[in-house]
Amino acid sequence: MAKELKELTPRSENYSQWYNDLVVKADLAESSAVRGCMVIKPYGYAIWEKMQRELDRMFKETGHQNAYFPLFIPKSFLSREAEHVEGFAKECAVVTHYRLKTNAEGNGVVVDPEAKLEEELIVRPTSETIIWNTYKNWIQSYRDLPILCNQWANVVRWEMRTRLFLRTAEFLWQEGHTAHATAEEALAEANKMLNVYADFAENFMAIPVVKGIKSANERFAGAVETFCIEALMQDGKALQAGTSHFLGQNFAKAFDVKFITKENKQDYVWATSWGVSTRLMGALIMTHSDDNGLVLPPKLAPFQVVFVPIYKNEEQLKAIVVKAEQIAAALKAKGISIKIDDNDTKKPGWKFAEYELKGVPVRLAMGGRDLENGTIEVFRRDTLQKETLPVEGIEEQIAQLLEDIQKNIFKKAYDYRASVTREVDTYEEFKVEIEKGGFLLCHWDGTPETEEKIKEETKATIRCIPLDGDKTPGKCMVTGKPSKQRVLFARAY
Amino acid sequence: MAKELKELTPRSENYSQWYNDLVVKADLAESSAVRGCMVIKPYGYAIWEKMQRELDRMFKETGHQNAYFPLFIPKSFLSREAEHVEGFAKECAVVTHYRLKTNAEGNGVVVDPEAKLEEELIVRPTSETIIWNTYKNWIQSYRDLPILCNQWANVVRWEMRTRLFLRTAEFLWQEGHTAHATAEEALAEANKMLNVYADFAENFMAIPVVKGIKSANERFAGAVETFCIEALMQDGKALQAGTSHFLGQNFAKAFDVKFITKENKQDYVWATSWGVSTRLMGALIMTHSDDNGLVLPPKLAPFQVVFVPIYKNEEQLKAIVVKAEQIAAALKAKGISIKIDDNDTKKPGWKFAEYELKGVPVRLAMGGRDLENGTIEVFRRDTLQKETLPVEGIEEQIAQLLEDIQKNIFKKAYDYRASVTREVDTYEEFKVEIEKGGFLLCHWDGTPETEEKIKEETKATIRCIPLDGDKTPGKCMVTGKPSKQRVLFARAY
Repeated sequence: MAKELKELTPRSENYSQWYNDLVVKADLAESSAVRGCMVIKPYGYAIWEKMQRELDRMFKETGHQNAYFPLFIPKSFLSREAEHVEGFAKECAVVTHYRLKTNAEGNGVVVDPEAKLEEELIVRPTSETIIWNTYKNWIQSYRDLPILCNQWANVVRWEMRTRLFLRTAEFLWQEGHTAHATAEEALAEANKMLNVYADFAENFMAIPVVKGIKSANERFAGAVETFCIEALMQDGKALQAGTSHFLGQNFAKAFDVKFITKENKQDYVWATSWGVSTRLMGALIMTHSDDNGLVLPPKLAPFQVVFVPIYKNEEQLKAIVVKAEQIAAALKAKGISIKIDDNDTKKPGWKFAEYELKGVPVRLAMGGRDLENGTIEVFRRDTLQKETLPVEGIEEQIAQLLEDIQKNIFKKAYDYRASVTREVDTYEEFKVEIEKGGFLLCHWDGTPETEEKIKEETKATIRCIPLDGDKTPGKCMVTGKPSKQRVLFARAY
Repeated sequence: MAKELKELTPRSENYSQWYNDLVVKADLAESSAVRGCMVIKPYGYAIWEKMQRELDRMFKETGHQNAYFPLFIPKSFLSREAEHVEGFAKECAVVTHYRLKTNAEGNGVVVDPEAKLEEELIVRPTSETIIWNTYKNWIQSYRDLPILCNQWANVVRWEMRTRLFLRTAEFLWQEGHTAHATAEEALAEANKMLNVYADFAENFMAIPVVKGIKSANERFAGAVETFCIEALMQDGKALQAGTSHFLGQNFAKAFDVKFITKENKQDYVWATSWGVSTRLMGALIMTHSDDNGLVLPPKLAPFQVVFVPIYKNEEQLKAIVVKAEQIAAALKAKGISIKIDDNDTKKPGWKFAEYELKGVPVRLAMGGRDLENGTIEVFRRDTLQKETLPVEGIEEQIAQLLEDIQKNIFKKAYDYRASVTREVDTYEEFKVEIEKGGFLLCHWDGTPETEEKIKEETKATIRCIPLDGDKTPGKCMVTGKPSKQRVLFARAY
C-alpha cells in the first residue's frame, strides 16, 4: 500500500508527470498557496544546502566574499540600463504600498490607500542595479579594485507557467558581482567562474556540461557576453545550468561608477556577474533519476548510506542495532554519513521503497542470519544491484562503492549525451532529428534572424557556441552563408 | 590621515553617533538607496555567517531541519489569526502588481495597470501563516509529529525609524516553526530553544542574558506565551536578543490543522516559533566595543589573529613573511584563523588602527629586531595590552589568549550588568533610577494598565518576568497591589 502511494508515473509514459511525481513524493518540494512559489521541503533543502556548501567553498577559495544587498530595487533603477529593463521589467513583483488597514466590515484587511509609496519598489529579479548603485560609493581608485562579492538570496521573476525548481516565481540562488580595473581582468573572472560552475556540475553533481558562449538572442539583458554551461536531460532536452556574464562597462556607465587608474586617468569600472539557482535541483533530478525515484550523487546526498535492520523481535533488533552503530562509527571516521532507521512503525519493505525513492546511494540491510554469519546486504541505488558481503572491513568497501557510484552516474550521463549528440548538415535533416531530442551540432551563419527562424519553425534554440571541440568552419545549414564553427542546438527547459 | 578618517565619535559624547560611525567605518553595514534597507558589507556578513554556522549546528543537534517557505503571503492569510493581523498588518510591504511597462514618454517604466493581482501579496514579516497553511497538508496523525523546521530567510517590516542592524525594514533572520501533539511537548520545545539562544548568546557572543517571560503587552502577536533573552547594552539600555513563542493551538485553529491522536481522537496541533535576527549584530557591537572600534569575541571573529610585518626593505619583509607563514601553519593546526597582511601600500600604523577598528582579537607584529631575537609582539584587542614573547611555542600562548579574551569580555559585560542592576521599591525612586539606565528589578501588580502607565511616564518597559533568581512576593511599586515576584524593567532598543 505504502509502495503504491509512492509510485511514480513511468518516464516512458509521461516524462513531465514523472518529474512532478518525483519532486513531490520524494519530499523535495511542493507548490504553495502563492501562485508560482514553491515550498522547499527539508529533504530537498538538505540537498540544496550540500550544493551551497560546496559552491560557497569554491567561491571563497577563488577569493570571493559574501555580502547582502536589499531585496527591493527602486523602479527607476531598472530603467538605467536600456537592455536590462527590457529583459526584467516584464515579469516582476511590484510593491506599491507599505501598510494594510482593517476593512469597513471589520473582518479583514485592505491596502491602506494613504500608505502609497512615492516610488514603487521592485522585488529583485537580479541585483546588478542595486549593487552597482552601491559599488559607486565603494570605488574611487584602482586600489579599491577588484571587488569580488557574492550573495546568497531569493529573487522573484513573475513567470506565467511555472514548474517546481525549473521555473518558479521565487527561487533561491547565488549571484556574484565583481568589479575590475580592466576588461581583460573582468573577462578572466567571468571565465574563471564558468570553470568553477563546470567543475561543480561535473565533479559534484555528476552532470557533464558543455561550456560555451550564448548567441546575442540568448544573452543576459545588459551583458556584453554571456558564458554558460549547458546540460542534457534524460528526455533529450537541454537545460542551462549556470551563466557567467561579462558586463563590460554597461552597469558602471548606467550608475556612473568611475575610478582613477594606475596611470592616473579616469575610467569606468569593468564588471561581471554570475549565478546558479535552485534550478540545479531540476537538473540533478532529470539527469540521474529513474522510475523508482531519485538517484543522488554520493557527494550531494543528505545521507550517503542508510541502514535498515530486519528483525523478528525486539531482542534481535537490539543486537542488530548494536552492530549498526559499530558500522556507523567506522563510516563516520571515514567521513561517510549514515542514517540508521530503526523506526519500528514501518516495515523493511516500506523503508526499501522509501530510500530508493529518495535516492540514498547505498542501503545496508542486516537480518538475523547476517548477524550469525557476520555478513551484510549491500544495495547500490544507481544500478539497483545488491550483494552480501562480510561485515569485517565493510567501511572500506562502502567508501570505494560511493566513489564508484559517483563515477558511474557521471559516465552514464556522459555516454547518454554522447549517444544523442550528432552533427547535422542540412535543415531538412535538422527538422527530423530535432524531434528525436538531444544535442545537434550544426553550422549557423551567426545572425539573430536565422536563429529566430529556426526557433519559430522547430522550437530549437542555440544553447551555446561551444568553447571547446571542433572549430572547423562550414556553411550555415539554413542560409548557406559562412559559419565559423558548429554551434549547439536543442530544445530546452 | 587614515587614522582620522577612521576615527569614531567617542561614546561619552554621543553613543548613538558612535554606534553609527562604528557600523559604517568598520565595514559592517551601510544604508542603501532603499529607505530602511541596509547593505551588509563583506566584513559584517562574515560575522553573521559565523553566527549562522554555530546556530545552525545547534538547531541540527537539537533535531531540527532547514526548509524554505515562500517570500509572499496572501493578504487574507494575515487576517486568519486575530491578534496576528493586529501585530503585523500595520507595517508591511504590499505587492499589488506583477508587471511594468514602458511609459508614454518612452524613457522609463510605469506599473502596468492591467497587471493587478487579484489578491495582494504581503512580503513576509514572519511566516507563521504561510507555514501553518502548508503544515495542514503535512499532518494527519500523531505519527507525522513532531515537525521541527527552521528557515533562514529575509523578512520585511516597514519601520518608520530605522537604525543599521537594530531596526531595518528588511532584515535577515532564522525562524523555527514546530508542530507537536501535546501542549507539554510544545512548551518544552519553546523552552529548549530559549536555552539554545541563551547558550549561544553567552558562550559564543559573550553576552550575558536574562531568560524570562514577556508580559502580555510585549507578547508576540498570536502567541500564548513569549519567552525571551534580554541583554543590557553598554549605555544602560536593554536589547531583546531572541524570542521563543509557545503558540498554543492558535495557528492550528486559524488554519484548521487537526490530527488523529494516539487515542484515536481528533485534536488541533500545538505550535512553537522562535527566532533571532541580524539585530544580534547590534547587540554584539553595543556589548563589547570601545572608542577605538569593534571588540569581537574570538569565537565569532572572521579572523582571530592578524599578523602585521614591520620592515625596512623588501628583503626584510620576505624574511618576516616566511616566519609569519610558519606561525600561521602552527595556528591553523590548532583551528585558529589568521590573516597575514603583507600589503605594502599601507603603513603598519594604518593597519594597527584598521584592525583595532575591526575588532580582531589578537594582533601580532614582527620587526627586524624581533626576527633577530626570536620574539614577537602580541597585542590583545579587549584590554589593548601588548607584550613581547618568544616566537617558540607562540601558538600555545595565542590559543590560551583567545580563550582568555572570550572569557574576559563576557566577565566584563557580566560585571557591568551586575553593577547597574538594582532593586527598586518605590515608584518615586524608579523615576529617578530609570534615568541612570540599567536593569531595575521591581514589584508589579501584573496588570497591563500599570505597565502601560509606567511606560508612558518613564519610557521604561517590562523586559521580562525572569525565570531564574529571586521569586519573593511583594507589593507593586505603583499600585501597592500584590506582586508574585520582581520583574525586570529598562528602557530598551
